[in-house]
Amino acid sequence: MIRYPNGKMYSPTNKGTTPSTQKATIDYSNRGMTLEEDLNETNEYYLVKGIAVVHKKPTPVQIVKVDYPKRSAAVIKEAYFKQASTTDYNGVYKGKYLDFEAKETKNKTSFPLQNFHEHQIQHMEQILKQNGICFVILMFTTSQEIYLLDASHLLPLWENMKKQGRKSIPKKEIETKGHLIEIGYHPRIDYIKTVDKLYF
Amino acid sequence: MIRYPNGKMYSPTNKGTTPSTQKATIDYSNRGMTLEEDLNETNEYYLVKGIAVVHKKPTPVQIVKVDYPKRSAAVIKEAYFKQASTTDYNGVYKGKYLDFEAKETKNKTSFPLQNFHEHQIQHMEQILKQNGICFVILMFTTSQEIYLLDASHLLPLWENMKKQGRKSIPKKEIETKGHLIEIGYHPRIDYIKTVDKLYF
Repeated sequence: MIRYPNGKMYSPTNKGTTPSTQKATIDYSNRGMTLEEDLNETNEYYLVKGIAVVHKKPTPVQIVKVDYPKRSAAVIKEAYFKQASTTDYNGVYKGKYLDFEAKETKNKTSFPLQNFHEHQIQHMEQILKQNGICFVILMFTTSQEIYLLDASHLLPLWENMKKQGRKSIPKKEIETKGHLIEIGYHPRIDYIKTVDKLYF
Repeated sequence: MIRYPNGKMYSPTNKGTTPSTQKATIDYSNRGMTLEEDLNETNEYYLVKGIAVVHKKPTPVQIVKVDYPKRSAAVIKEAYFKQASTTDYNGVYKGKYLDFEAKETKNKTSFPLQNFHEHQIQHMEQILKQNGICFVILMFTTSQEIYLLDASHLLPLWENMKKQGRKSIPKKEIETKGHLIEIGYHPRIDYIKTVDKLYF
């Protein structure tokens, strides 16, 4: 278990370049990890350390046919994927309700809104009305930057898109309204540090 | 949509009898409803009315084989049920994290602890440590009584059982430490009213 003191990656070409053109020597994609796996590892770390309790919700499945073979476990023989009515992650931090969705893009200058679904956006609205903490974690895979953006910034952009407006969030807007999350080794995506600064 | 003024059922034989021997004219089991369905209806009511956002988590399934037929939806052809690592319900009420498990029994004088799993109990412990609101909803189907019992009361009973202690919770203890939830028509199990009294 190796951890650098500041949790940041060594990045020799970083000096004098803008973050979006930076090339890190440890490439995120080369690690064979997905954003989901990294968030699961992070949530496991939070759980074990008693920092927060956040789980990814199971994929919703409509089960149609189940076989019950003798002396062995039930086998689902026919089932279909259902669209989720909520976001993927939720949990508790210091008594407060925490809710988020995580998405990644290969785009360099904007984040496509089509990554989200109407149901998820409605869910985020409901959470904000209940004074829950609700945000999205947006990853630009090329530049290996991960941002936390409060749901309150996403909702008007979504509404605007539905009125034939822009179908993506400009990266500049995410840099301004969002908050860069440090990528580390353990935990890999220490988003609670950002949550703590922003909401507590 | 019929709703009685006090949300209670008409129960002519109720006078002079103890709650556990009471026989209501509208039998819960005859309504063809399960506790899960009633809680889903209740959560839907809370969602629509903007009272709280609580969802049942999807059943966790380990997907092994998926077919992708041309021009139609993906079909899961082989999958297995996984044991849940959390409770079934969670959400947000007035900014606070809410978490619970709901179970029913046909027993009249006690509630079997085997209705719960070690993983769920551990999850409840973790939620309490994060100052989340965590409880169980226990239904005695025969007497049609539903109680809310804070998880802090359940945990020591579970520990005691593991040390060869009692395998069930005496109903008297649930009556003392728990809180009776009103059964109504819409919503059917108005547990938020009890949550509001207890935790806010």
